[in-house]
Amino acid sequence: MIIVMNAPTPEQTNRVLDKIRHCGLEPHCLVGRDKTIITTVGDTEPERGEQFERLAGVERVVSVNTPYKLASRQFHAHNSVVAVNDVRFGAEAVPVIAGPCAVESYEQFRETALAAKDAGAAMLRGGAFKPRTSPYSFQGLENEGLKIMQAVGREVGLPVVTEVTDPRAVGLVSEFADMLQIGARNMQNFALLKEVALAGRPVLLKRGVAATIEEWLMAAEYLLSGGSSEVVLCERGIRTYENYTRNTLDLSAVPLVKHLSHLPVVVDPSHGTGNWRLVGPMARAAVAAGADGLIIEIHPWPEEAMSDGPQSLTLANFRQLTRELAKVAAAVGRTINHGKGGAQR
Amino acid sequence: MIIVMNAPTPEQTNRVLDKIRHCGLEPHCLVGRDKTIITTVGDTEPERGEQFERLAGVERVVSVNTPYKLASRQFHAHNSVVAVNDVRFGAEAVPVIAGPCAVESYEQFRETALAAKDAGAAMLRGGAFKPRTSPYSFQGLENEGLKIMQAVGREVGLPVVTEVTDPRAVGLVSEFADMLQIGARNMQNFALLKEVALAGRPVLLKRGVAATIEEWLMAAEYLLSGGSSEVVLCERGIRTYENYTRNTLDLSAVPLVKHLSHLPVVVDPSHGTGNWRLVGPMARAAVAAGADGLIIEIHPWPEEAMSDGPQSLTLANFRQLTRELAKVAAAVGRTINHGKGGAQR
Amino acid sequence: MIIVMNAPTPEQTNRVLDKIRHCGLEPHCLVGRDKTIITTVGDTEPERGEQFERLAGVERVVSVNTPYKLASRQFHAHNSVVAVNDVRFGAEAVPVIAGPCAVESYEQFRETALAAKDAGAAMLRGGAFKPRTSPYSFQGLENEGLKIMQAVGREVGLPVVTEVTDPRAVGLVSEFADMLQIGARNMQNFALLKEVALAGRPVLLKRGVAATIEEWLMAAEYLLSGGSSEVVLCERGIRTYENYTRNTLDLSAVPLVKHLSHLPVVVDPSHGTGNWRLVGPMARAAVAAGADGLIIEIHPWPEEAMSDGPQSLTLANFRQLTRELAKVAAAVGRTINHGKGGAQR
Amino acid sequence: MIIVMNAPTPEQTNRVLDKIRHCGLEPHCLVGRDKTIITTVGDTEPERGEQFERLAGVERVVSVNTPYKLASRQFHAHNSVVAVNDVRFGAEAVPVIAGPCAVESYEQFRETALAAKDAGAAMLRGGAFKPRTSPYSFQGLENEGLKIMQAVGREVGLPVVTEVTDPRAVGLVSEFADMLQIGARNMQNFALLKEVALAGRPVLLKRGVAATIEEWLMAAEYLLSGGSSEVVLCERGIRTYENYTRNTLDLSAVPLVKHLSHLPVVVDPSHGTGNWRLVGPMARAAVAAGADGLIIEIHPWPEEAMSDGPQSLTLANFRQLTRELAKVAAAVGRTINHGKGGAQR
Repeated sequence: MIIVMNAPTPEQTNRVLDKIRHCGLEPHCLVGRDKTIITTVGDTEPERGEQFERLAGVERVVSVNTPYKLASRQFHAHNSVVAVNDVRFGAEAVPVIAGPCAVESYEQFRETALAAKDAGAAMLRGGAFKPRTSPYSFQGLENEGLKIMQAVGREVGLPVVTEVTDPRAVGLVSEFADMLQIGARNMQNFALLKEVALAGRPVLLKRGVAATIEEWLMAAEYLLSGGSSEVVLCERGIRTYENYTRNTLDLSAVPLVKHLSHLPVVVDPSHGTGNWRLVGPMARAAVAAGADGLIIEIHPWPEEAMSDGPQSLTLANFRQLTRELAKVAAAVGRTINHGKGGAQR
Repeated sequence: MIIVMNAPTPEQTNRVLDKIRHCGLEPHCLVGRDKTIITTVGDTEPERGEQFERLAGVERVVSVNTPYKLASRQFHAHNSVVAVNDVRFGAEAVPVIAGPCAVESYEQFRETALAAKDAGAAMLRGGAFKPRTSPYSFQGLENEGLKIMQAVGREVGLPVVTEVTDPRAVGLVSEFADMLQIGARNMQNFALLKEVALAGRPVLLKRGVAATIEEWLMAAEYLLSGGSSEVVLCERGIRTYENYTRNTLDLSAVPLVKHLSHLPVVVDPSHGTGNWRLVGPMARAAVAAGADGLIIEIHPWPEEAMSDGPQSLTLANFRQLTRELAKVAAAVGRTINHGKGGAQR
Repeated sequence: MIIVMNAPTPEQTNRVLDKIRHCGLEPHCLVGRDKTIITTVGDTEPERGEQFERLAGVERVVSVNTPYKLASRQFHAHNSVVAVNDVRFGAEAVPVIAGPCAVESYEQFRETALAAKDAGAAMLRGGAFKPRTSPYSFQGLENEGLKIMQAVGREVGLPVVTEVTDPRAVGLVSEFADMLQIGARNMQNFALLKEVALAGRPVLLKRGVAATIEEWLMAAEYLLSGGSSEVVLCERGIRTYENYTRNTLDLSAVPLVKHLSHLPVVVDPSHGTGNWRLVGPMARAAVAAGADGLIIEIHPWPEEAMSDGPQSLTLANFRQLTRELAKVAAAVGRTINHGKGGAQR
Repeated sequence: MIIVMNAPTPEQTNRVLDKIRHCGLEPHCLVGRDKTIITTVGDTEPERGEQFERLAGVERVVSVNTPYKLASRQFHAHNSVVAVNDVRFGAEAVPVIAGPCAVESYEQFRETALAAKDAGAAMLRGGAFKPRTSPYSFQGLENEGLKIMQAVGREVGLPVVTEVTDPRAVGLVSEFADMLQIGARNMQNFALLKEVALAGRPVLLKRGVAATIEEWLMAAEYLLSGGSSEVVLCERGIRTYENYTRNTLDLSAVPLVKHLSHLPVVVDPSHGTGNWRLVGPMARAAVAAGADGLIIEIHPWPEEAMSDGPQSLTLANFRQLTRELAKVAAAVGRTINHGKGGAQR
């Protein structure tokens, strides 16, 4: 903790020094012409800095400790590899997760899954419980959707990730899904994070729509400190003033998070742009930037999709994209993971 | 729904027209030199526009219907007044809610409550379940905090609002609190909104930290369509690039929401600025802009607060502020509601 | 300057210490378990911190010196008062500047000016050189507009402020205007700032549409260090993700800037909201927050305005507003300056 | 132009229809239960929509015409190729521009230029007139810097781009530089744009730090309509709430702008991230996303740089990067342009 004081009186400085000592810490004080800088090292509770900001003469308090521990690369130098069945995130291969925004029917999901696998996807995605901005929008097939995903996943031989939005539903969703997704709107739904941490399933943690990198890693810390050891981060676009795109995909988060943390990072160019025309270029860019995976919305007939049609690729577009991704992956020393039965054969 | 097409072929135009008719709607088509504009009126489902965006030749789809109905002033011209016991939001008086960020002990909350009432507060606030960015931060006294708030509220004779963060806790919190708060992080926690809508308590719905006005009103629509009839909106600052303040308090949301909706709007200058020095000026500004209430963090000794000390007013500061607010309220034809036992006597 | 190092080797620490000494400064080093903190006090050049960020082991560099000097309240404790003829910004009275976005004709400007003065405006605004997003939009009457403003200003007896956008036009505009405005788009047009600083006219410096408070005060520092001693700051809304309003008016900038700086701050609720319905409430809020002036767009027939009609008040609206503002000003211990011939008589 | 009216009275509708006809346009009116939609096709002046927003009953006005013409792909289907001497932007090759933020001395620039060329750069960058946030920061070598750049550029045989910040300096800078850069702060400095448009040099137009895609293309329109026919756009990061990076590099702007416009787009990952560790991954990502060029800050000894050291690559880093870029370019069917004397031999 570093406390910067602005032209303090001796009494103001002494009050700060006393308070530091009262916390059991040792202060070091450097008096300049205008500013006085008081430094203390050693673990401090996250709240403590705030308590000094209100003291007279204090200009600001700078925290020096990284607020996340288990998520930090500082204490875990090697990349973590998170396995979902035989799909591995954080290793050389870059798995592609594909599927529709929402599961609409057995036929729709099966057709999508077969095409996804055939094009080289390593894993399936689909929504059963859809968090929708409007209460009047389609909210997902719920339990029926979970059953369809599990059945089709087993049939085609690919694991399935789906979102869970309610702490009361974590047990149920865990029975049907191989990986649990925390959506962007729920990144700081701490009741949900705590419940998911106990579920014993790998977790895909999306970045909140206006979350800083640090808040995102703190949400991962909730999962890791709560009992989960398998967390994959997912960049999916942040909210900015630009409204030509649905969100602004922050690809610099990929190398930045990999610098700060050992956790794998995947990218969602579908929500990240909201526009199918941009999904291909941004998927290629994500792989070139070092992403450990991709999650892409595809639909057999996007113009009939019950949600997110504008950002969904057709099955043919997706097949074309996986070919391009394989080339970019090779250019950066990686491969696209095509799953057991995929195009790599 | 308005569909703008960019130099479409006749086939492209016909496909759009056919699809509109297939939805049971009547299209009107206007062909210009470059652009073709196809318009249809009548209620459409919120998803429908998306399904047209993917069709060839379509540049964009503009929705004309207001997506919220129950929250809209269009269908409810008069201001709604929401009562919490005898405190009324949306009427001439402007109630002030005051209290600490977190309930820390009976003594702390009681001292705060007595001073708040004496200064003219109409209602108490306090946190028992605290959503904290860090899992290592103080998370609130939980059940014990609820009991303290209820006991002190009854003792001083003021109603109490507190946040609920977990759908499983809605029943419990409703037993102890007079009003339920949905915090900014949970504005789009739809599982929570649905449960709170059924609780039979007035609701204080904070704006999400990066929520648009429309998303905020849609969250209110979840409450209203789910069974709640008493919703008060709360502007508490939005996230911007400016980081001198914790958030940027968007006071223009007050007159804007009152133009669009019949619901009362209160302002939280404490979270909205994160800096106690700015709380007073922004509280005065909120009243001048037409706010229907204020919610202000106060603490008997802010430099020892377990959370949000930097933005908390001392009890003396708060007393001074309520005097200033009374003058500003009078200047805009309103009064500060001082509660039953307050300074108005 | 504070340098935070993350688990540095002794060689890394020594390299930093040597480089500090090489700059002629004295380092103080505090070694903790993970972090090493090196502090130095004394004036440093603004670039210097950057040179340490690249050294191995350095996590970040925190600057402790305020980068603006002449604009800072630290070295100028009293409020500055800036006079434009007999209109004073920063004193007890709160002058209101009013006028059309663009000067369109002698008749339009004269009718506006007479009504503005009659309603109590202290000063006139008008645009002759209009920075427009589109090259095909009306760019202002240019020299002719300047002449109209000067003639009408003299006729009605109110000083005039107008924007200058080109360093080559500073001399010309200074001949016709009583105060020079630097527009939001030009806040960091340093060639223009340097020229305006030499013009010998008071300056109204608008905040850039995405400028931080610090960047804004640094732009003022360009003016003050360049020879200008009379600078008035103007908050006019910042760019955020919210697009219901044209900008988000950051009223917290008013008390914040007044805490950091001695310069007067006025508010432009017209550009700050882009919507005439919000201008009145936000003008009242600005006065309640402590603004030292207002600048408001008015037009005799807004639906025919050549620019910014949607945010312009009618002359009748403006008259009503100044009455309301007088009441709010009184509530916060100030007055609305009605100019020599205004309603105060 | 589409005018959406909300439950208008017949008089309100007629007023709108009359005003449209008064503009010489033909209205088409569709009356729904709540909303009335009035549509007109045909070119309208950009201001016209605003004049309808103020009419009673009008909810909003939607413009359907693209506001930029010369920059639009709609009227220029093929990619434009912009040549700077023998370097071509917008063709198959992807030229890399490299050099220091600021020219500091002949030796520094020459050493950088030789290394840049040797590593495969096609063009040099360097700053002589530096727009700096602080008036106390190094402002560039000015005329001396221009001379150094021209001399070294000729010596090593690479063209040079440098920023011009003042309309009065356009002639001078054009004598020394092969390409003129409009910096982010000056993207809407229209006086400068108009002067640069007449200079007869290719222009590199950086996106403003908070500019929308549309505003950026409108700035290009100023250049194109003012006489310049050779404009290259440059994405360099936008301002967001995230402050771990200096800016948020918006790579989705690359495919988006190439969809909307025929102009080449280059990417500046140095300013776009502000952190040398992120420059390599984001440069690779830019090429994968379809960028037509890169502009990268390099410095022989970044920890001594007079500006932007933290984001500058060392010469060795840059050499390594160009090798990686060549592989990524090949993966997307392009090449890195190594200039006449570069590594391609």
